[in-house]
Amino acid sequence: MAGDGGSGQDAFLDALRAALPDDALLIHEEDLHPYECDGLSVLKALPLAVALPHNREQVQAVLKVCEQFGIGVVPRGAGTGLSGGARPNAGAIVLSLARLKQMLAVDTRNRTAQVQPGMRNLAISEAVRPLGLYYAPDPSSQIACTIGGNVAENSGGVHCLKYGLTVHNVLALEVLDASGELLHIGSQAPDSPGYDLLALMMGSEGLLGVVTECTLRLLPIPENTLVILAAFPSVGAAADAVSAIIAAGIIPAGLEMMDQLAIAAAEDFVHAGYPRDAAAILLCELDGSEAELQVRLHAVENLLEQHGAGSIRIARDAETRLLLWKGRKAAFPAVGRLAPDYYCMDGTIPRKRLAEVLEQIAAWSAEYGLQVANVFHAGDGNLHPLILYDANIESQLQAAEAFGQGILELCVAVGGSITGEHGVGVEKLDSMCAQFTPAELAQLHRIKAAFDPEGRLNPGKAVPSLHRCAELGAMHVHHGQLPFPELERF
Amino acid sequence: MAGDGGSGQDAFLDALRAALPDDALLIHEEDLHPYECDGLSVLKALPLAVALPHNREQVQAVLKVCEQFGIGVVPRGAGTGLSGGARPNAGAIVLSLARLKQMLAVDTRNRTAQVQPGMRNLAISEAVRPLGLYYAPDPSSQIACTIGGNVAENSGGVHCLKYGLTVHNVLALEVLDASGELLHIGSQAPDSPGYDLLALMMGSEGLLGVVTECTLRLLPIPENTLVILAAFPSVGAAADAVSAIIAAGIIPAGLEMMDQLAIAAAEDFVHAGYPRDAAAILLCELDGSEAELQVRLHAVENLLEQHGAGSIRIARDAETRLLLWKGRKAAFPAVGRLAPDYYCMDGTIPRKRLAEVLEQIAAWSAEYGLQVANVFHAGDGNLHPLILYDANIESQLQAAEAFGQGILELCVAVGGSITGEHGVGVEKLDSMCAQFTPAELAQLHRIKAAFDPEGRLNPGKAVPSLHRCAELGAMHVHHGQLPFPELERF
Repeated sequence: MAGDGGSGQDAFLDALRAALPDDALLIHEEDLHPYECDGLSVLKALPLAVALPHNREQVQAVLKVCEQFGIGVVPRGAGTGLSGGARPNAGAIVLSLARLKQMLAVDTRNRTAQVQPGMRNLAISEAVRPLGLYYAPDPSSQIACTIGGNVAENSGGVHCLKYGLTVHNVLALEVLDASGELLHIGSQAPDSPGYDLLALMMGSEGLLGVVTECTLRLLPIPENTLVILAAFPSVGAAADAVSAIIAAGIIPAGLEMMDQLAIAAAEDFVHAGYPRDAAAILLCELDGSEAELQVRLHAVENLLEQHGAGSIRIARDAETRLLLWKGRKAAFPAVGRLAPDYYCMDGTIPRKRLAEVLEQIAAWSAEYGLQVANVFHAGDGNLHPLILYDANIESQLQAAEAFGQGILELCVAVGGSITGEHGVGVEKLDSMCAQFTPAELAQLHRIKAAFDPEGRLNPGKAVPSLHRCAELGAMHVHHGQLPFPELERF
Repeated sequence: MAGDGGSGQDAFLDALRAALPDDALLIHEEDLHPYECDGLSVLKALPLAVALPHNREQVQAVLKVCEQFGIGVVPRGAGTGLSGGARPNAGAIVLSLARLKQMLAVDTRNRTAQVQPGMRNLAISEAVRPLGLYYAPDPSSQIACTIGGNVAENSGGVHCLKYGLTVHNVLALEVLDASGELLHIGSQAPDSPGYDLLALMMGSEGLLGVVTECTLRLLPIPENTLVILAAFPSVGAAADAVSAIIAAGIIPAGLEMMDQLAIAAAEDFVHAGYPRDAAAILLCELDGSEAELQVRLHAVENLLEQHGAGSIRIARDAETRLLLWKGRKAAFPAVGRLAPDYYCMDGTIPRKRLAEVLEQIAAWSAEYGLQVANVFHAGDGNLHPLILYDANIESQLQAAEAFGQGILELCVAVGGSITGEHGVGVEKLDSMCAQFTPAELAQLHRIKAAFDPEGRLNPGKAVPSLHRCAELGAMHVHHGQLPFPELERF
């Protein structure tokens, strides 16, 4: 067991042991190590214990024991998150939902599926493929990440431009609050009375409740799909082409941009056939009936040419399409081979500010002496600049952090936000002080208190304390008193 | 001034008078009468006063004075709501946003508009029409209703099947909380960090804050539009055709159904050319490029014929299209001419349960001896049965209420909800006890308290008190104690 073996902790673990079957509780240090971090591996901590319940009743039992002893709970899906949202807290337990991984029901007429939170994103689409259906949001980690984790992060993916984020594809949730009280949120009907708690749960990073069941919207697999690969002589030209496609009223299934460094890295890694001499490429996926596809393909080709695309390649067969996407989906690990470390940013901006933000990033890259590869969801303005550095060189680590912080502040300044889909977790707590005013942060804490008055669900994540922002100088402190003293706890 | 002129009230009105220009405050009874109800005219009450501020600063001043004196505030747009959400409360003031009606900015590249809350829905589309843009949600009251009211009710309209509810078309809000504290919620970027307060505000019926500015998503006016009118020999056949269209992956811009009584009433009223001998008609609007339209029209026509459509008419020119929609949009007043009174329901159901719910409504119609006209958003399962009765005949009034309550409970039982777009207001408070468990209602009250701990914003609306549900027998009371005693206030 991690931490000091005080008698309060002993009593707590005894109660947990009594509430769970033997195979559902890990307390020995060697068993806890696999849970010491999530995808943000630079931040590690050991939990007090890991609970691996088999069903909702056991999840409820865990929450009730934790309430009784005042112990924090860090919910966890697959642990693929990139912002440290599932990092354990010392003194808290990890509550893994990995064993609740069943598909409970599929309704082909209403096109919905009821699934448990630990089911993998890709496994859902695979399970309903024989019915001609699929689940649209497809984060790059979809082979591993769970639908419960997707809800916690409001995950997107390359297809969210057309098909929406997780919030647009989940119809209802079964949630346990911090006390283990069961709430049914949302419905299969188009709108629900009462406050919209469903959207509130999306992206709440495990701070408001523990999801034990999800009702998902499924979509029919498109009749036809094609992917267009266009090469551009400059990043600005590619950005303008993106604006022109959207302005023409065309919503591609996916619209992704990669710059020269990202192209070269991906090409070396997966040999997708990307043009190495291009300053930027666009990958544009269209789907629909064959007749509709022809119309839109023609329109997109014209727009790409008008905006200076030097070469245009069209992939219709599944094999070539998957290969083109493989380069994009593998871009992060591909770039990872270029330098000992990289810092992956996840800011969003209004689409029209794309060209100027990219120019500023290029200028900072020269200034800091750190290379940047840009890989991003161009269609909806979600940037993923990857800053390359060597963590063993102290000055580079500092420069990368300053550079990254600058990018996020720029995103906020042009009307965007500090995270598109990776969440705040522990990584971006400080950036939240730039994103929100004290009054707005206080409102977020009051929402938290409405679900979890003792602050025991995923403590210290997602929303920074007012003290933290004050210490960063991002908040005004009057006579040593913070505003909103009733929220001191958070 | 309404109510007793106690000295506390005098002091309050003096403070309000000091905070506002002369033309921004109504306190004489004859001036208050126009505000005594909204579109649900059976419930009337006089407010203490009506504030008509000219700008955000004055709205803020009103909220601060009301906080100081502990006075309730009923925010009001155009007062077209159908569930009594803007009905004044005795002892509270009405805060009209009608004078904040400017369009502040239009961004054609990002396709967004910043508007004040009192701007009329249709005026927004009219203002940006020269730019080739429009605002998609179009409730039947769009000529009069305001965008602030649309936010409060999360309004839909005949085009929400394809283009979404208000929640899908608002990007950001500027909101004042109960203390007049300013919050910026949402952004022009695709996702926001922090909890999703934007969706939370949508449909919150003025209980969580006062909207002072909205950033809206605009859409390009579709290149081409056509409306298909199809006549069916039975309501069931029309319902099956709706399912088949959606199942084919076609999302019409609008897909509306009317039954025989509604057809006859609308035809007598606007002479739209509806087939009087049909048991049901479908109105199906398609939009897009000409080439795409041809493909989809062909597919829809085939599906309609396969499902027994007896006659199919296609309107391409704007005049005929508008005439076909005019019959649908005027269906409520048209049906209103058939009987002294009608009771308009607004339940939602999963689309696949349509046929059986309509059968049950027909059976109850015979049982209660009350005619029912059905007019509804078939594509998304939002029903509007209109129960005809004579309020002067006591037994009919009671029968209509029991019938209506039965319909709403049926909606909940088949997995739907008690309101699709008209809101809860005061009308459906009791139905909320059927929709939610005590734990779920308590959670809604905790959300309310997170924004408005004193319960002064639109008191007594939208979410019933736990006592009210207990008295209805919908909640278990243990030893005279309600669950969640900390929420006694609400």
